[in-house]
Formats: sequence, C-alpha cells, structure tokens
Amino acid sequence: MNDTTTSAPENLPDRADRDADFLADWAVHSRFGAVPGTNGVDRQAASPADGEQRAWFARLLQEHGFVVERDAIGNQFGLLELVPGAPYVLTGSHLDSQPTAGRFDGAYGVMASAHAAFAVAEELRADPSRARFNLAVVNWFNEEGSRFKPSMMGSNVFTGKADLEAALTTTDPQGITVAEALDALGERGGFTAPPIASYAEIHVQQGRSMEEDGVTIGLVGATWAAHKFEFRVHGAQAHSGSTLMADRRDALLGAARLVVAARDLVDEFEPGALHTACGELTVYPNSPVVVASDVELLIDLRSPSAEVIAAAHASLMSTVATVAEEVGVDIEITAEHSWDQNPYPAEGVELARAVADDLGLTSAPVMTVAGHDSTNMKDTVPTVMLFVPSVGGVSHSLEEFTKDEDLLSGLHHLTEVVRRLASGALAG
Amino acid sequence: MNDTTTSAPENLPDRADRDADFLADWAVHSRFGAVPGTNGVDRQAASPADGEQRAWFARLLQEHGFVVERDAIGNQFGLLELVPGAPYVLTGSHLDSQPTAGRFDGAYGVMASAHAAFAVAEELRADPSRARFNLAVVNWFNEEGSRFKPSMMGSNVFTGKADLEAALTTTDPQGITVAEALDALGERGGFTAPPIASYAEIHVQQGRSMEEDGVTIGLVGATWAAHKFEFRVHGAQAHSGSTLMADRRDALLGAARLVVAARDLVDEFEPGALHTACGELTVYPNSPVVVASDVELLIDLRSPSAEVIAAAHASLMSTVATVAEEVGVDIEITAEHSWDQNPYPAEGVELARAVADDLGLTSAPVMTVAGHDSTNMKDTVPTVMLFVPSVGGVSHSLEEFTKDEDLLSGLHHLTEVVRRLASGALAG
Repeated sequence: MNDTTTSAPENLPDRADRDADFLADWAVHSRFGAVPGTNGVDRQAASPADGEQRAWFARLLQEHGFVVERDAIGNQFGLLELVPGAPYVLTGSHLDSQPTAGRFDGAYGVMASAHAAFAVAEELRADPSRARFNLAVVNWFNEEGSRFKPSMMGSNVFTGKADLEAALTTTDPQGITVAEALDALGERGGFTAPPIASYAEIHVQQGRSMEEDGVTIGLVGATWAAHKFEFRVHGAQAHSGSTLMADRRDALLGAARLVVAARDLVDEFEPGALHTACGELTVYPNSPVVVASDVELLIDLRSPSAEVIAAAHASLMSTVATVAEEVGVDIEITAEHSWDQNPYPAEGVELARAVADDLGLTSAPVMTVAGHDSTNMKDTVPTVMLFVPSVGGVSHSLEEFTKDEDLLSGLHHLTEVVRRLASGALAG
Repeated sequence: MNDTTTSAPENLPDRADRDADFLADWAVHSRFGAVPGTNGVDRQAASPADGEQRAWFARLLQEHGFVVERDAIGNQFGLLELVPGAPYVLTGSHLDSQPTAGRFDGAYGVMASAHAAFAVAEELRADPSRARFNLAVVNWFNEEGSRFKPSMMGSNVFTGKADLEAALTTTDPQGITVAEALDALGERGGFTAPPIASYAEIHVQQGRSMEEDGVTIGLVGATWAAHKFEFRVHGAQAHSGSTLMADRRDALLGAARLVVAARDLVDEFEPGALHTACGELTVYPNSPVVVASDVELLIDLRSPSAEVIAAAHASLMSTVATVAEEVGVDIEITAEHSWDQNPYPAEGVELARAVADDLGLTSAPVMTVAGHDSTNMKDTVPTVMLFVPSVGGVSHSLEEFTKDEDLLSGLHHLTEVVRRLASGALAG
C-alpha cells in the first residue's frame, strides 16, 4: 500500500445500507426490456427499452447529486465536481444488451459503478481534503454492436478510434441511423467530456474459470487476440428443384461449408487454444425453391496466442479457396479486423490485486476473451478492469446468472478502487 | 384425330396479327415489378407490383369481352360464356414471381392462355355451333410461395387441397396476412367458379433438356417425386467468443451441417437421380458475438424415383440424428410433405402430342421437377400440361430467357389445345 490508499472497509459506516440500496436499484434496472417469462432482457442500443432505462438511470444519478450529460455519440455521463477544474475518475460500462440476453452483462458494471461513485462521493463531500480528482459515471453507447455495427461504438468514438460522423450514419437492418435512433430518445447531446484521470470497469466473467477456481475478483490482465471476418459468398440464383446439381452455384452451400470448416478448425489446435464462431448469417433471396445467390456471414477467430491466430487464419484462407473452387462461388472478404493479445497496464492490475488483498477477497489474474469498453480506455488513461464470477460462464443468454454475494463483493472492490483512484492512485 | 379436332393452323385467318398482339402485350406485362437494370421482375404474391399487374390484366381481359372475377383466395378469372350453363375450359398459370426472378415463369403461361382464349373466343363467336364449353382464363394466386407459404396456394384452395381460412390467415415475414394483403389490393372476391370441363397450362421448362434435344413442345407426363422438410434446430444462446467450444450448443453449426449433408447426399446416387436443396435458412438472434439458439431451414429432396426418395430420406434422417448428437442440438421437423412420382393423365399427353404433330412442331415427353398449378388441377379435371424450351434451363433467376419463336410456337400449340377442348376434346 502507498499513501494514496485510504479507508479499509471496516471504516465504512453504512456498507450494509449501501448494499441494500444497490440491490434495490439492481432489482429495478432489469425491468427495462425484460423478456416476459425469463430473468433476461432485450435492450438493444437506442431501442425504446434502452431509452426508458437511460431516463431512469439519469434520474438515479441526479438524485445522488450528479449532473447528467450526453455526448455526440450518446454516451451518458453522471458528473460530480469536488475539486474545481481537476480531471475526473471515470467508472462505468454499458446498459445496452444483445437480443434476449442476460441482465448482468454491462448493466452490472454500470450499476456497480454508480453505487461505487455514490459511496465515494458521500465520503469526499464529508472530507473534501481527501479528493484529488472529480468523479464521473459512464453508460457507454452501443457496446454490443447487435443493432448497429461495430461493437464498442461509444467508447470507440470517445477515444478517437472511430469517426463520429461514420458512427452516426451507421444504419440498423431497418435503415434507421444511429443519429435518428438517438434523437428519437433525446439521447444525443453536445457534451464534451473533461480530462479523464483514470478509468475503472467491472463486468461478469463470460467464462467459468473463476467459478471453478473459487475466485471472487478477476484481475483482468489481457484481451485474447482475434481476427474477425465479414464474408460475402456470391453464387447464382436458380430454381432449387429443377436446376441440375452440376449447374448450381449455391451461395448458401458455400457459406454452410465455411461455418462447418470454422468449427473444424478448432480441432487443429490444442484444446482451448482457439475459439471460432459464426453468429450471423443472412441469405438472399431466402425463399423456398430458390438457390441462394448471396450470403453474408461473419466468422471470428480468437485465441490467447497470436501464433495460433496466424495459423488458423492461414488454414481458413486455404479452406475459403477450396470451397470457392468446389462450390463454384466467389467468396469475398468485405471487412476484417484483427488485434494481437492486448495487455492491460500492469499498474492497474496491481492496484486491483492490492485492493482484493486488503478487503480479504480472493483474486487471480484472468484474461478476457471478449472486448470491453475498457479495451479502448486502457490505451488512453490508467485503467483497472475487474471480473466477478458467472455461474457456468453462461453469457449472451437469458440464462446468464451471478450470485448476489459476488455482485456485492465486486461492488465493494470497485468502490475501494474508485476511492483510491479519486485520492490519486495511478496518477503517477 | 377424332371428331373433336377442328381447324388446322392454315385455316386461321390472322395468326400473324395475333402473334404481333401477343408480343405487344408480352412487352408490357414485364414492366410490373421490373427490376431496374435487368430483364427480370420481383413481383411477389399480393405485392403492390402484383396488384398493378392484376389491374392491367383485368383490363386486358375485359377489352376482349371477358368478365373478370376474383374468388375468396384471390384467384383472378376472366370468363366468356358462349354456351349458357355449360362448363368452362380453363387455361392459365400465375403472374406472381419469386424475388428477383425471370419474366417468363408463370407469366408466360397466363399471357399465352389469355391470347389462346382470345383467339378461340373470336372463332367461336363467329361460329357458335362449334362451341361445346365456355372459356375461362385464370391467374392463380401465390403459386411461388415465397412471401406466403406454401406454394400453389390459390389452386390448393380451389381444388379443396387446402383450407381457405388457413390460407387467408397465413402471414408473411412482416406479419401481414394473405387476407390483409389481398384486401389492400382489392383482389379478394366472393366469386364461386362454375363447373370446369378441362384445364390447360403452358410453362417454360425449368431445365435444359428440351433446348439440348431440339424439342419445341414438352409433353409433361409426370412430376418428380419429392419430400420436403421444414427443420428447426434448437441450441443455446451463448457468447460466441468466450464460451468454451465444448460448452456450445450451436444451432447454426447444426443447420450448416444439414445443408452440407443434403448436398453430399446427392453423391450417394446415380448422377441426376436426386436433387437436393436448402434455399431458406433463418438464424436467431443472428447477431455478432452470439451463438445462435434457433435456426429454421427448409430441405427438399426430389427425384423421378420414389425408391431414391425413400433411400435419401432414410439417409437424411440418419444424418439428422448424428448432427443432433455431435453438435448437441435438438433438431425438430416442424413440417414435411411428400408426394410420389405424380403422373398427368395420358389422354391429355396424347392430345398434346397430336396437336404438335398436326402443327408440325417437334415434341417429346418430359417430366417436371417443379410443381405447377396443373399438378392440382389434373387430379380434378382432364388436364394438358405443356413446356416450351428455356435457354440453359435458367429459372428463378433474373437471367431466365426463352426465345420469341418458342413463345409463339407454344402459343400456337396452346391455342389449338384450347380450341379442341372447347369443342369437346377430353370431355369423355
């Protein structure tokens, strides 16, 4: 511990009350976009349900004395100025969800961030001398990328990794732009964020290693490497009954062979070394009795190892050439992006480890397979990324679940991280 | 020839004029739903383009003295009563199309039927003693089944093979019912058709054997056997990056394996003995970074041989069990229907052969792989089904093409068939 660390949990006068407050708000948050008959939600970016939840969340921030602002890409901020003119400690995640998803992904991070900031704000108001930085909570726009691609749109624009105009003109499958969807909710603003001192985010693990290993706090040290492709398979529309099999150029057959090949690719490597997926595949004209002329599909390769990604990439390209030849289709890569294994700064990991030790919470280093808004923020400011366990690692599913005791342990940990950041930890 | 045969083509006073009239109307018909920059059309059942063409077609029928009526499922009739109270010779096909399809499929049969009926009507008005039956032209509703399933909806209901109420409440992917779509066009009527004496239909071949063999008139003698399946693959929604490969129950992987297996099935039989296809496949939630929980897909098996269909069916069911086991998904057959090789009545084939001989047109027996509205009608009344050649056999494609000389030969042949039917051929 250094001189920026502050109160231990036993000094908090009202943690039980705060836990109860958190759980009360937690019980409300998942009513927005609730999927009837399940515990999950469908709250895609800038949907009516997202808008209703944003309005509710704004009121919650205001009730705790935070000023609510939206920037030009719809990131929603709650700001509390304690030290006039000083940079802000920012903490948050995203409230948008995948279709028919769990209520924890993203939303837990936003709700825990808000309550961590509320607790620290109360302390710093009582003893302003301990505040070095101001406090801000963020609900990043469109982390999921299901309605509007790509994912992490809000933090991409915020960190200058994506162009604002390009993001605002992105359309959903119905042709509605991001700008139109945000304007319909009154969620596009003109706010320009003040300087950020540091960033903290917490998320449920989207895997089951922490549950299996009995770890309460995951110290996220790196993101897996990935290579993502958007393919377009182009064949020829034809009668699917009468056309001779040899005359067909079946785009859906070509696409199906790629989906199968992507799965088979996993078996060329050690167990766990490579994850592959196709989650989105769209057929044209998608009519009975018509051989498809065009199929668009996504294929992702992910691995902790850049070497595995490179080898899988080479193998996939060889398969693409074989399928194109054998099926008689053209296969075009319409977009691709890739990244190497992407480490989080060691100082943030060390701060998180120290906090866990001080709070008596078990912790262990983990990697994240999925990207998070913190993946953007860590390249800009000192960043801490935390996980809590998820039962069975179920994610992007109505069945996603994390126990209350883990939600509260994560809240306690994040609160202490925010407390230390606000007092100057990681400020160099 | 028997005593119901009538005038030879050399007795027709104005065939050249009639050919010119046909080609003039043919040039207009494909403006409805024309796909810009192509020679093809997109005129799905009860779409605005279908409605515009139906209105135009009704005026064309009326200009030739036919009374236009619509029945409760939107079949459009043009009727000419020559012999009060007598049954009608019915001829027609369908004006609806697949998405981005050719301008010949269905529409050629309707336009040729109308012009055949116009010619015969003129003759019979001039010499009523030769008329034994009345004349009717039909534009069957929704033969293609692309917007509303199943196909051949209008003739299914007309022949009592499908329930009217079930058809009217069928929805398109936007949730619009058949009844709503027809009402929006004013194309749902209350007409009950009079007794039908016989039926004739002409269609472009959806294959290339007639072009290759130099045959002008195809004498359709049977429909291939078929077994059609609607599958639903049920897995589990999950994060497509972080979920361990072994934990996934990927509905899209299961579906893709079925698509590939259906194609591979063909190679278990002699070349040409089996056609298989999947033209429609829909993924839920179809989002990046989400393993699909549900995929619906169609798979068709077609063969001239019922034994091949049976063997292919057994092989496919075995594959379904294997895929379900290996991928960890449930695969449900939500609908299936099948038919054996389905012969057309020999008397109709013989009539068509005699007409071709008398007109000096080359003819040969052919089978149809695809179903037609005549497949329904032949089970109810004496029926003649004719093909003309298609260049390269290209079908359900913007590239579909048949030469004018073949269109006209088919028109001449159909006119003579209608002429003989109206005078009593096939009336027993």
